[in-house]
Amino acid sequence: MTREGEFMNFQIEKKLKNSLGRAGVLKTPHGDILTPAFVAVGTKATVKSLNPEQVREAGTQVVLGNTYHLYLQPGDEIVRDAGGIGKFMNWPGPTMTDSGGFQVFSLGAAYGKDISKITKITDPSLLIPERFDDSDAPRLAKIGQDGVSFKSHLDGSIHYITPEKSIEIQHNLGADIIFAFDECTSPAEDLQYQEEALERTHRWAERSLIEHRKLGGDSALFGIVQGGRDENLRKKSAKFIGNLDFDGFGIGGSFAKEDMSTAVKWVNEILPEEKPRHLLGIGEPEDLFMGIENGVDLFDCVAPTRLGRNGTIYTKSGKIIIMNTKFRNDFEPIEKDCGCYTCQHYTKSYIAHLFHGKEMLAGTLASIHNLYFIVNLVKKIRQSILDDKFFEFKKEFLDQYIKNS
Amino acid sequence: MTREGEFMNFQIEKKLKNSLGRAGVLKTPHGDILTPAFVAVGTKATVKSLNPEQVREAGTQVVLGNTYHLYLQPGDEIVRDAGGIGKFMNWPGPTMTDSGGFQVFSLGAAYGKDISKITKITDPSLLIPERFDDSDAPRLAKIGQDGVSFKSHLDGSIHYITPEKSIEIQHNLGADIIFAFDECTSPAEDLQYQEEALERTHRWAERSLIEHRKLGGDSALFGIVQGGRDENLRKKSAKFIGNLDFDGFGIGGSFAKEDMSTAVKWVNEILPEEKPRHLLGIGEPEDLFMGIENGVDLFDCVAPTRLGRNGTIYTKSGKIIIMNTKFRNDFEPIEKDCGCYTCQHYTKSYIAHLFHGKEMLAGTLASIHNLYFIVNLVKKIRQSILDDKFFEFKKEFLDQYIKNS
Repeated sequence: MTREGEFMNFQIEKKLKNSLGRAGVLKTPHGDILTPAFVAVGTKATVKSLNPEQVREAGTQVVLGNTYHLYLQPGDEIVRDAGGIGKFMNWPGPTMTDSGGFQVFSLGAAYGKDISKITKITDPSLLIPERFDDSDAPRLAKIGQDGVSFKSHLDGSIHYITPEKSIEIQHNLGADIIFAFDECTSPAEDLQYQEEALERTHRWAERSLIEHRKLGGDSALFGIVQGGRDENLRKKSAKFIGNLDFDGFGIGGSFAKEDMSTAVKWVNEILPEEKPRHLLGIGEPEDLFMGIENGVDLFDCVAPTRLGRNGTIYTKSGKIIIMNTKFRNDFEPIEKDCGCYTCQHYTKSYIAHLFHGKEMLAGTLASIHNLYFIVNLVKKIRQSILDDKFFEFKKEFLDQYIKNS
Repeated sequence: MTREGEFMNFQIEKKLKNSLGRAGVLKTPHGDILTPAFVAVGTKATVKSLNPEQVREAGTQVVLGNTYHLYLQPGDEIVRDAGGIGKFMNWPGPTMTDSGGFQVFSLGAAYGKDISKITKITDPSLLIPERFDDSDAPRLAKIGQDGVSFKSHLDGSIHYITPEKSIEIQHNLGADIIFAFDECTSPAEDLQYQEEALERTHRWAERSLIEHRKLGGDSALFGIVQGGRDENLRKKSAKFIGNLDFDGFGIGGSFAKEDMSTAVKWVNEILPEEKPRHLLGIGEPEDLFMGIENGVDLFDCVAPTRLGRNGTIYTKSGKIIIMNTKFRNDFEPIEKDCGCYTCQHYTKSYIAHLFHGKEMLAGTLASIHNLYFIVNLVKKIRQSILDDKFFEFKKEFLDQYIKNS
């Protein structure tokens, strides 16, 4: 149950017929978020290559910082002393921090294995880690029953994060929405490991909630559902986490792409309908439609800015590689009918030149377009729900987008 | 003689008593430049790490691109087809391009020797190059009587630039103010070489002027005075170049810091008073006062943005290194009374964090402050001339700036 008026207020404005999708409004101490919404990732309290005005002009409503990174640099106490992450980074709107669980996964089971939020399982044996061994190499994190110890990727210093510590750090960072500490598992882990990990995540959820209540303040705490690709575990987790007194929920995991929609559906059929749900770390166009159709309200993903910095640019007809020779002489904007700052002022020729010249403005201009593209795609999806045209819009958009991708 | 109303109009509003300094207005097809003025350097048609709005908000009136770089990448014909450098880079105000002469110097005599616009001559023998030899190594440029051949630093392709070619390239780039092709010499060259180089520069000036008239258009052409550190050569060059029908003048050279003020004075006592003068590539605060006192109207320099990207930040009490440990907890802006975007919105703690985290926004915020600092210092100097307070302002500023540097 949301404690209305106390921390957070989520109102559903409209539901999709014959699916779990909905449009709503999520109130936070720093303003309302119209959902579904795409959350811009500002890992180290900066959305890479953009200033907050550019983030805002792209249509962004809310920014998510990474607890793991900010704990190590500059340190959560500096962010606290600065007045919290929003004030520190000059972002006046709503903010979130994740719990650090995914970074633990990246440093542990997934370390050096080139797997991330979406994984193609070609050789599962590659993904199954040895755990609880005494060797530090090649992993930087070890998972115990009470928490996770890891070596800083910056200076090799040793840190130990428990659920209580994660919540304490997040209270120092001071975002409007924070997450319970969890363990993100690889989709290639065996069932026994998934069960053990899920038990830990559930115990850690309860401990996160207790610590959060103890510390007080006006942030909202979201619990995280895990369970890998197993239907029983996903449902078990949704029931357990959904029954705890969280203000909303995250859906975590490193997904095989083909598993994602079923996992999201299993979970959202169980989670209490009246609370917001955030699909963690997911944000490609086709995944946004899938998630929203299956009841997701919030998404975050580094893709728009990471792809942008690498010169991969979203268009309605699929992604383009701006350093392709043909764009050197192309004096049209990326998309003629795009309302973003980049498309209003620059040609593909100029942006290509900036990338060829390794100029910093290259990544900025491409990131602005990509962020605008994704943020506004979600806004259009929201409008299509309000207009009872979700499925038409989905077909129309994906037909053009996927066909050319 | 300036051909009034035809290309460019320079009006002197006020002269300093007992010195060569003056405040004026330089009219260009893309707007007026209040002089003295600091010109932001946008080497590859982008002021590094900034967008044009940020450049404008820092107070910048005019941007200078580098002919050598733009000729190689993206190519001057692409810039021409885009509508010229201003339109290409979305800078609506006045623009300049240099002639490529300094880059020839960097690739030739100075290549690999770590000397630049201002040189401390500790071991002059290091600076004296072998010239006209057949070996490509280690230099990338060879100077002949008709022009300069050089190897592209990008792909090793061979190019040959004559005065005519430089002017043709600059007409394609389409800036409001362009420069005659010249040879910039090292201050450590012997007199004989300086004399030969100066003869070349003078012949190239005449040829640049002829080509410029032939091509037509509405850009202004500035001739460049060279002559190294030798009084006779500097005066000879000022007389020769000053007598040609240029719209204004550049003062070129790689200076030993202690020679700069005398060289500038020698030259500006001779150049026709009614035309604007640009001290090429110079822009540290103490040099701005020196140049303005000695009759310079325009300056350009990469220092504000280059230093900014490296975390060195101008303040009225000298430069600070923002990655210094003491700034990690400093929740004040760089300068409390600074009107720049960076100081209005960010603390030293946040900027230091961005530098420690190697975030792109770090260089952007520091460059904004540095550019604002220098551009507005020149504006204040201009105002001090109008108010008959130049010498008081110079003493007041430099006492505080130098004392702490």
